[in-house]
Amino acid sequence: MFWFDGTLHESSIAPFDLTDRGLTLGDGLFDTSLARNGRIFRRKAHLDRLAASAEILAIPFDPAAATRALDALAGAIGEGTVRLTLTRGGGTRGLALPAHPKPCLFGAASPATSGATFPVLALATSSIRRNETSPVTRLKALPYLDAILGLREALACGADDVLFENMAGHVACLSVANIFAVLGQSLVTPPLTDGVLAGTIRAFILDKAISLGFVAEERSLTRAELSCADAVFATNSIRLLAPCRAIDGMAFASAEHEGVKRLQAMLRDAIVIECGRA
Amino acid sequence: MFWFDGTLHESSIAPFDLTDRGLTLGDGLFDTSLARNGRIFRRKAHLDRLAASAEILAIPFDPAAATRALDALAGAIGEGTVRLTLTRGGGTRGLALPAHPKPCLFGAASPATSGATFPVLALATSSIRRNETSPVTRLKALPYLDAILGLREALACGADDVLFENMAGHVACLSVANIFAVLGQSLVTPPLTDGVLAGTIRAFILDKAISLGFVAEERSLTRAELSCADAVFATNSIRLLAPCRAIDGMAFASAEHEGVKRLQAMLRDAIVIECGRA
Repeated sequence: MFWFDGTLHESSIAPFDLTDRGLTLGDGLFDTSLARNGRIFRRKAHLDRLAASAEILAIPFDPAAATRALDALAGAIGEGTVRLTLTRGGGTRGLALPAHPKPCLFGAASPATSGATFPVLALATSSIRRNETSPVTRLKALPYLDAILGLREALACGADDVLFENMAGHVACLSVANIFAVLGQSLVTPPLTDGVLAGTIRAFILDKAISLGFVAEERSLTRAELSCADAVFATNSIRLLAPCRAIDGMAFASAEHEGVKRLQAMLRDAIVIECGRA
Repeated sequence: MFWFDGTLHESSIAPFDLTDRGLTLGDGLFDTSLARNGRIFRRKAHLDRLAASAEILAIPFDPAAATRALDALAGAIGEGTVRLTLTRGGGTRGLALPAHPKPCLFGAASPATSGATFPVLALATSSIRRNETSPVTRLKALPYLDAILGLREALACGADDVLFENMAGHVACLSVANIFAVLGQSLVTPPLTDGVLAGTIRAFILDKAISLGFVAEERSLTRAELSCADAVFATNSIRLLAPCRAIDGMAFASAEHEGVKRLQAMLRDAIVIECGRA
């Protein structure tokens, strides 16, 4: 199911401006969210992040239109994934920002697939580093080619996802997920300045950590610390909380960790509270 | 003037698949070339680079279709700029490569604008670094958001373009151009492994250097060396050879340098030889 020109469509084929800078230069943003029972989980967090990111990129953003798209797609799909895409719209040749951008907003919804939430993952470290000097690494911006190539590399090694380090050699993130290390009572995740996306589930876990007996820490995470972690997990809007069973062949009993199970149960409960029972 | 579905069109509005990975993930390539007298300058170099880049990204590439598009757009515009875009085409959700990609090729031509070739530029260094660990920085791939943000930063400082350093702190490139330093008889430009595009004019200059009395060197270039350069210039397919008059406020008499003038004359001659007189 698709949304463009302000309404739902069955087909993904739309009249589209081939000078759109989202298409020609990766000049745009997107957002992926979980639909349950026809509602978006963490809806406000998704819309707020899209608005804040659009402001950073100076792309005009209409929150009412985005809300309509999100709700229409969630209602249409019931259970699944909703993606919104916001581009800067058409432009003349060159990189300079158009004086009067006409942004383009569209969306898509995909039905839920089995195993999409709470998967257990093996990771492989990429030779590509995450570029923490770029604001783009902190935004859900369209350029995902590094993540695509990193994932291709990881899949070829028999892993399920890639682990990126940043320029400083610190642990950064997966292809499409934030990472957490459980170190005793501490839940450690890299700060945004280490080149990671401000994930909505990342923020939710940081917020709820203390109520589940954890101390949340946003700080740079070394590979040595990660190796010593009691558990490692990845978060994003669709996987929610994915325990990591291995990193470069080194095993972690993350899925069996009691704290990880508590966090997963908390997320399950939060979805029911926000979206109701399916 | 536009080219899609195998033919020329006046309008940029086309039926387009909104699941196209070029649009949703920056998963694609492009090429920009100079049309003179209805012909593409360095035509084979452009087509060869697109083919080689598509192979690296595992995007199926039809050289005959790309050649038809390039020639049709050059013929239609006469004098100007031709851009081809090649995406991996539509796909289901997620980053994993589709098993059977259906790539999408389209193009656009823009008329020549005055001052587009051989401009004299002031540069400002970006706080964003070029990520030489990523193969994407060596390809003319769709993700250009770092370059857009770097250029925005440079324009705000009153400069004409941005100078990127890489992670190692070496000189890399501009937003859309390679960089050369003239150091005595040496023409020094960073190697591709420093995170720079394999520019067609960059390759042409390296090839012709010796015949113009220069020794060409592809090697890492420090900021200290750049500061001591007799001249600094940038190359790309449209600007051809742009002398740099200042970097972060430090002046360079690049446009007056005899060697730079010889290189510009060589390029003018080469265009006439390849494309004929307008």
